[in-house]
Amino acid sequence: MKFLRYGPRGSEKPGVLDAAGNIRDLSGFVGDIAGEVLTNLARFADLDVESLPLVEGNPRLGACVSGTGKFMCIGLNYADHAAESGLAVPSEPVLFMKATSAICGPNDPILIPRGSEKTDWEVELGVVIGKAAKYVNEANALDHVAGYCVINDVSERAYQIEREGQWTKGKSCDNFGQTGPYLVTPDEVGDPQNLSMWLEVNGERVQNGSTKTMVYGVAHLVSYLSQFMTLHPGDIISTGTPPGVGLGFKPPRFLKAGDKVELGIEKLGQQAQVCVADA
Amino acid sequence: MKFLRYGPRGSEKPGVLDAAGNIRDLSGFVGDIAGEVLTNLARFADLDVESLPLVEGNPRLGACVSGTGKFMCIGLNYADHAAESGLAVPSEPVLFMKATSAICGPNDPILIPRGSEKTDWEVELGVVIGKAAKYVNEANALDHVAGYCVINDVSERAYQIEREGQWTKGKSCDNFGQTGPYLVTPDEVGDPQNLSMWLEVNGERVQNGSTKTMVYGVAHLVSYLSQFMTLHPGDIISTGTPPGVGLGFKPPRFLKAGDKVELGIEKLGQQAQVCVADA
Repeated sequence: MKFLRYGPRGSEKPGVLDAAGNIRDLSGFVGDIAGEVLTNLARFADLDVESLPLVEGNPRLGACVSGTGKFMCIGLNYADHAAESGLAVPSEPVLFMKATSAICGPNDPILIPRGSEKTDWEVELGVVIGKAAKYVNEANALDHVAGYCVINDVSERAYQIEREGQWTKGKSCDNFGQTGPYLVTPDEVGDPQNLSMWLEVNGERVQNGSTKTMVYGVAHLVSYLSQFMTLHPGDIISTGTPPGVGLGFKPPRFLKAGDKVELGIEKLGQQAQVCVADA
Repeated sequence: MKFLRYGPRGSEKPGVLDAAGNIRDLSGFVGDIAGEVLTNLARFADLDVESLPLVEGNPRLGACVSGTGKFMCIGLNYADHAAESGLAVPSEPVLFMKATSAICGPNDPILIPRGSEKTDWEVELGVVIGKAAKYVNEANALDHVAGYCVINDVSERAYQIEREGQWTKGKSCDNFGQTGPYLVTPDEVGDPQNLSMWLEVNGERVQNGSTKTMVYGVAHLVSYLSQFMTLHPGDIISTGTPPGVGLGFKPPRFLKAGDKVELGIEKLGQQAQVCVADA
C-alpha cells in the first residue's frame, strides 16, 4: 500500500492511494501516519480502499510520515559516490543527522539559504521505522521497517565541508529533506536492494543508479544503528546517494533559484521541486 | 522561575518549583512544558505558585522540556577543553546533533552501551528555544531563549572518534542526554556567560569551569545557528563543555557500571546519575 499525507503544511491529513492513483481520505481510521500507527500498517491490508472518501482536486502532499524523531543519514554508502567525492568507502556505516525541521513535502520548493552558492541534490532511498529496534540482528532487522520512500537529501557543500567540521550544518537547512510522495509498504517494494533511482536537473539526468550498489544494505543499516541507540517508529534512515551529485561534476554544479529538480525511485514514486531563494 | 516535569517516563506532568523548593503541579494551566508554551513563559510571572497543588513525595524528574525537535551541540566551545582534546579552537562554531531519543531525566541512569569501554561525561549549559528563530541577529538572539538548564552530554569516545567519522554515533545512545532538573527562565539566570559549573565522578571533582570561558557565547550561537535553519520552540542547544572530561586525563578515564556522576551549574540546579550496563 501507498500511504501519504495531504493538505497545508502543519495540518496534513492521512491518506492512501487507490488502485486508480486517487487519494483516499484515511482520517476516519487514523489521526496521522506517525508513531504507533506505523507499527501495524498491515492491519490496513484488507481495507476496501475504494470505499474511503475520495479526495478531490490536487492537494499539496506533505512528508509521507510525521512525528519523526531522528532523521539519520548514511554517508558514502555507494562506492561510486564515494569515489566522485574523493573519499574511501568507509569500513562501517557513516552516520550523520539531518535536523527533522528540514523535512518537508515531496514537491515543496528547495530553499536556497541566504548567501548559499553550493546547494546540491542527492536522491536517496528512505527507510521508515515501524517498530522500535534496539540491538536487533540483521536477520530480524526488516521486521522493524514500516516502509520505504523517496528522499532528496539536499546538501549545502560549503556549510557541510568548509564551515568547521561535522556535516550536519550543511544538511539541516529548512526544506532540505523532501520526503515522499508515498510511504510504500515492504510487500509492495519487494527487495529494497534492487530499485532503480534517478534525479534530473532542468530535465537533464544527472543521477542514474540502483540500490543494488549500496555498500551497506537496509537490513544491515537497521541492525547496525540499533546497536547504538533505540530506533523509534517514525524515525527515518536515508541510506545514501548514488553518483551524480553536483559536487562530483568537474567543475562542480550547484542549484540556483529557478532550477527544477525531479527525482524518483522505482516503485516509490517521484518528486518535483523548484529552487527558490530563501526569504 | 524554575519549570520542571515530574512523573514516570513518557507520562510526565508539568510542574514549577515554589519558594521553599517544593514541586507544584502546573497541569491545570498547561499540558506540558513544550512547544508554544515555551514562547510565553513570562505569563506565569504573576502566578501565585504557592496556590498550586503541592506534589507530595519525591517523584522522578523527567527532562525539563518536552517535544524537542533538535538537540544541537556545539563542539570544542571552551578553549581549555579543545586543548585537552588536542584540537584547535574552531574558527566558527562546530555543530553536531545528538538524537532526541537520548534525552532523559536529570537523575536517570547513564546506560553504558553493550561493549562500550569509553563512555565519558560532559557538563554543559543547555539553552532552550522559546520562540522560532531564523536569520536573527546577535542583538535580538536572547529574545528567542525560553530558559537554561543543565545537560550531561554523555559521549562514547570510541563510537564518536574511532568508528568512521561524524561524532553523532557516539553522542546519541539511549540516556546520553540528562536534561534538567529545571528549565530556569532568563530573568533568574541573569548573564548566561557568568555561571560556574562542575562535575564529580564518585565524589571526585573532575570538571570545574565557568561559562565565562566559552568561545562562542549563547547570543552568538542562537544567531549563528539561525542562519542555517529555523530554531523551533523546544529545540535545545548544548553549548559545549569545559575541561576535565575523561578523554582528557592521562591516561584517559571512562565510566563503568556502578560509577556515580554528579554535576551542576550555578542557578540551574544539579543532577546525579548512576552508571548501569545497558541490558
